[in-house]
Amino acid sequence: MKVTLLTHTPEPEKIVAAAARCCYSNDDPNKLLEEMTDEKAAKFLQKLNDLGHQSPLEHVSFTFSISGVSRALLAQITRHRLASFSVRSQRYCGFNSADFIQPPSIKKNSEVEKIFDESLAQCKKNYDELIEKNILKEDARMILPNAAATSMVVTMNARELLHFFGLRCCNRAQWEIRSVANEMVKIVKKIAPNLFIKAGAICQQRGYCPEGKFSCGKAPSLEKILGIYNRQKN
Amino acid sequence: MKVTLLTHTPEPEKIVAAAARCCYSNDDPNKLLEEMTDEKAAKFLQKLNDLGHQSPLEHVSFTFSISGVSRALLAQITRHRLASFSVRSQRYCGFNSADFIQPPSIKKNSEVEKIFDESLAQCKKNYDELIEKNILKEDARMILPNAAATSMVVTMNARELLHFFGLRCCNRAQWEIRSVANEMVKIVKKIAPNLFIKAGAICQQRGYCPEGKFSCGKAPSLEKILGIYNRQKN
Amino acid sequence: MKVTLLTHTPEPEKIVAAAARCCYSNDDPNKLLEEMTDEKAAKFLQKLNDLGHQSPLEHVSFTFSISGVSRALLAQITRHRLASFSVRSQRYCGFNSADFIQPPSIKKNSEVEKIFDESLAQCKKNYDELIEKNILKEDARMILPNAAATSMVVTMNARELLHFFGLRCCNRAQWEIRSVANEMVKIVKKIAPNLFIKAGAICQQRGYCPEGKFSCGKAPSLEKILGIYNRQKN
Amino acid sequence: MKVTLLTHTPEPEKIVAAAARCCYSNDDPNKLLEEMTDEKAAKFLQKLNDLGHQSPLEHVSFTFSISGVSRALLAQITRHRLASFSVRSQRYCGFNSADFIQPPSIKKNSEVEKIFDESLAQCKKNYDELIEKNILKEDARMILPNAAATSMVVTMNARELLHFFGLRCCNRAQWEIRSVANEMVKIVKKIAPNLFIKAGAICQQRGYCPEGKFSCGKAPSLEKILGIYNRQKN
Repeated sequence: MKVTLLTHTPEPEKIVAAAARCCYSNDDPNKLLEEMTDEKAAKFLQKLNDLGHQSPLEHVSFTFSISGVSRALLAQITRHRLASFSVRSQRYCGFNSADFIQPPSIKKNSEVEKIFDESLAQCKKNYDELIEKNILKEDARMILPNAAATSMVVTMNARELLHFFGLRCCNRAQWEIRSVANEMVKIVKKIAPNLFIKAGAICQQRGYCPEGKFSCGKAPSLEKILGIYNRQKN
Repeated sequence: MKVTLLTHTPEPEKIVAAAARCCYSNDDPNKLLEEMTDEKAAKFLQKLNDLGHQSPLEHVSFTFSISGVSRALLAQITRHRLASFSVRSQRYCGFNSADFIQPPSIKKNSEVEKIFDESLAQCKKNYDELIEKNILKEDARMILPNAAATSMVVTMNARELLHFFGLRCCNRAQWEIRSVANEMVKIVKKIAPNLFIKAGAICQQRGYCPEGKFSCGKAPSLEKILGIYNRQKN
Repeated sequence: MKVTLLTHTPEPEKIVAAAARCCYSNDDPNKLLEEMTDEKAAKFLQKLNDLGHQSPLEHVSFTFSISGVSRALLAQITRHRLASFSVRSQRYCGFNSADFIQPPSIKKNSEVEKIFDESLAQCKKNYDELIEKNILKEDARMILPNAAATSMVVTMNARELLHFFGLRCCNRAQWEIRSVANEMVKIVKKIAPNLFIKAGAICQQRGYCPEGKFSCGKAPSLEKILGIYNRQKN
Repeated sequence: MKVTLLTHTPEPEKIVAAAARCCYSNDDPNKLLEEMTDEKAAKFLQKLNDLGHQSPLEHVSFTFSISGVSRALLAQITRHRLASFSVRSQRYCGFNSADFIQPPSIKKNSEVEKIFDESLAQCKKNYDELIEKNILKEDARMILPNAAATSMVVTMNARELLHFFGLRCCNRAQWEIRSVANEMVKIVKKIAPNLFIKAGAICQQRGYCPEGKFSCGKAPSLEKILGIYNRQKN
C-alpha cells in the first residue's frame, strides 16, 4: 500500500477561512483573502469547528495517489460519491505483475498463508492462459481475485475527507481502507493542521461512538452519555 | 442475471410534466398536477425532449433489483454517483452458492471453459477452507474472483437513468452491464414510454456517436455530420 | 404558505427495510421485499436508526408542492444540493398577483407593517410600469423584492429529508423555512412513521445541540454532556 | 460585476493528463505525474477531448470571487449543484451600500432608468427604516429587491465548469450570468488553455445548438445537420 499526495489547493486554511468570512462580511472576497493571515485563519477554523459550519471546507481539494491496494478496497472507496476517481482499468490494462494484497490475518498462520498464496498464484496462471487463448482482458479478469492490486487517483474536498475519515478510520472499517484513511489523515494534517485538527474516526471528531452494538467500545455511546446527563439533571 | 423493478414513483409522466409546467406557470403545482392528463403529459414530455430540458425528470425515481451479476459489474455500476445502492456485502455474507458469472466468450471454447470453471471452483474450495480455518469472511473473500455473483438494490431518477443508458447501452460498454442496462430500458419503457422514448445508447438519444476512434460505427460521428453540413453550407 | 405532497415512493418503509436487508442476506431482493411485512419493516427501521445506517433511506423519495413562499426561502432551500427543484421562473412568468410574504415580526407593529406593505405595493407598481414600457420580465424583476411569492416542486429522498429537517426545523433556521420544514415533517410522519420517527431538528435526532454559542438552549451541547460523562468517569 | 480567481489546483493540465493515463497504465500515478510534461499533457487533453472522456477533469478545481452581482444571479448560479458556494448572507450582513445591479436594457431609456433607480432607492430607504425600528435583518431584507448586490466564493471542478459554461455562455442565458460565465472562461483559458480549449456555450463545445425553437440561430440544430447527413447518405 502506498498513499501519497499528488496535489492540493494551495494555502487551504486561508481559503477556507476567507470563504467562511465572506458569509458574514460586506467586504469583497479578494480583500478578505488578502487580509487573511495564518493566525487569523487558525482562529476562524477553530470557530467553524465549534459551530459545525462545514460548507466552506468544500472550497479546498486534495488529490491522492493510492496504489498497491486490493480491488476489495476499490469496491469500498468508490462507494463515496462526493469524490472523483481515476482507476486503473482491468478492461484495458493486463494483469502482469501478480501483485496481490495479503491481509494481516493470513500471515499469522503458515498453513492458511499457503492456501491463500497458492490460490492467487493459480488465478494468475489461469488468467495468463485465458489471455494466451485470445480471451479479452475484460472477460479473462473475471477469474482475478479481489486481492488483485490496483492503483487510482482520488480527489476529495476537505469536507468530504472529514466525512470519509469519520467512517473509514473507525475500528469497524476493514483493515485495508482503515490503513489508507489513516495515511491520508497523516498527510493532510501536515498541510492543514487546523483544518484537520479533529481528523480521524467519528468518535475522535465527536467524542462519542454512533455504531451502537457494533462499537469497538473505545468511546462511549451517545445513549450512555445522554443517560448520565439526564440522570444528573433530574 | 435477473433485473426487476421493485418500485417507482407512481404516474411518473404526469409528475414530470406537471413539474416542468411549474417553471412556466403562475398556477399552484397541485392544480397543474390535477389538470394533467396522460395526453397532455405526453405532449409536454415531447416538448421537454425537443428542448433538452432535463431537470424535471429528476422528480421520478425507479428502484431495481439486480441479481446474478458479477462483482466486476458491481465495480462499474457503482461508479455512477447520482444513484443509490444497497449491495450484498462480502464482509457480512458468506459465499455459499458457488454462483459465478460466465462471460459468453468463455462458453464458445470448451478448453477455455474448462480453465475458467475449474479456476472458479478452486477459488470457492479455497475460500471454504479459509473460512473453516477461522479466517474472517472479509479476509477470506480476498481470493474470491470478479466472477462471484452479487445482488443489489439500485435507485436512479429518470434523468440519471437516461445518462446511464447513454453510456451503458453503448456497444463500447462491457457485455454484462450492457445486458443489465438493456433490461432496465425495456422495463422503464413499459411504465413511461414518453419519458423514455429515446432511452438507449447515446447514439440513439442524439443520432450521432461521440466515442471517436472507439466508435462501433453504427452511427456517424459528430465530426462527420458537421463536416458534411459545413461543406454543403459553403 | 402551502405545503402538500404530490407523490412519493409507494410503501417506503418496506422498500427501505428490504434494501437494508439486501446488504446482509444471500437472498434475492425481490424475495426480501415479498417477505417484508409492516411489522418486520418497523423492526428493521428501528435497527437502522440505532446503527445510523442511513444509505438505504435513499431508495425512497418524496415530492412536495410548496407555494406561497418568498424568494428568500427559495434562496435558502435551493442551497440543498441533494434535491431536485422545479421553480416558477421570474424570467418567463409575469408577476401578476402582488402576492407577497409578510414575516410575523412585521405584523406586530402597525407602523412597521405600513412601511413594509407600501414598499411592496410600490415595487409591484414600478414592475408593472417597466413591463408596460416593454422591459423584459427578466430585467423588470430586478426591482421585485425577496418577499415576492413563488411556487416550486421539490423532491428529496428520505435520507436527505432527515438532513434537511435537522438543519431547517432548528430554531436557528429562519421562520419561513422552519415552517415549511415542520409542515413537511408532519406530512412524511403520517406516511412513514417509523422511517421518520426522529424527524425534526438535529437536537431531536441526536439529543444534543451542535450549534455552539448560537444554540437556542433547549438541548444541551455535546461539550456539556461529554464534560459530565468525563467528570463522572474519573 | 467583478470576477477574479482566488485559487486553483496547481498545474491542472498535468494532473488531469496523469489521472487519465492512470486508467490505461500499470504504472504508479506518482510516476505518471513525474513523467508528464506540458507537451505530453497537451496531447493527452486533446485525446480526452476527442473521446469525450470527462471524468479526469474532476481532479482540478477553480475557486472564484464573484462580487457586484445581483441576488437574481445568485438564484441562478446556486442551482448548479456540483459546486461549492459561500455567499454573503442577508440574514447576518446589513445592506449598507445601496449597491444595486442595473441591467443594460434599463440604461437605454432615461424614463425607464428613473423608475428603476427610484424604486431601488425607495427600497433601500424603507429597509433602513425597518432596521431602525428594530426589525431583524432577516425580515427587513424581505423588501430588498433582486437587484441588491451580493458577493460569493464559488468553487467548481473543470468538468462542472465546462458544463456550466455550456449552459451559461449561451445566448439564451440571462445577460448577467452570461457575463460572469464569459469572464470565468477568459480566466481559466489563460491558466489551462488545453483543458478549456472548447470552453464556451454548448454550440461552441459541440458545433450544434440543442436549444430547439429557442435557439439564437448562430449554430445549426442537431436535427438540421442530421437531416442533411441522412439525405446525402440516401
